[in-house]
Amino acid sequence: MRARVQVFLKPGVLDVQGKAIEGALHGLGFPGVDHVRVGKTIEFDLAGSDAAAAEDEVKAMCERLLANTVIESYRVEVA
Amino acid sequence: MRARVQVFLKPGVLDVQGKAIEGALHGLGFPGVDHVRVGKTIEFDLAGSDAAAAEDEVKAMCERLLANTVIESYRVEVA
Repeated sequence: MRARVQVFLKPGVLDVQGKAIEGALHGLGFPGVDHVRVGKTIEFDLAGSDAAAAEDEVKAMCERLLANTVIESYRVEVA
Repeated sequence: MRARVQVFLKPGVLDVQGKAIEGALHGLGFPGVDHVRVGKTIEFDLAGSDAAAAEDEVKAMCERLLANTVIESYRVEVA
């Protein structure tokens, strides 16, 4: 199975990388860009065929390693 | 409109961050993980209401700033 995890900073946390990209895009002539947020995407193959069990396993990986849940939130997709 | 850009290293390019995560997950007791790839996700609001024009604009942003097209590929979603 293929799992995809998206990790973003929580809404209240200042996203300096997003702010830098926003400024750079404005400077390059894209003034309509606003509220830029930058996150990580982690994709991997996962052994097994039970989608519900796989999702639980991926959530455990997020809690233990992939996301810093103090400042980051995550979304899990398993397909 | 909300745009989402996903930037990944191209298939032939060694993903050291992915390798590190793979090793760490194996060490934490998740042996079924394989082929880990790590990418960036950039989400932002975009002025305008024409989806096709917005997608072209976002692709131009990718070519000029968001992706290094020598080693990275990107996917654009506009909604």
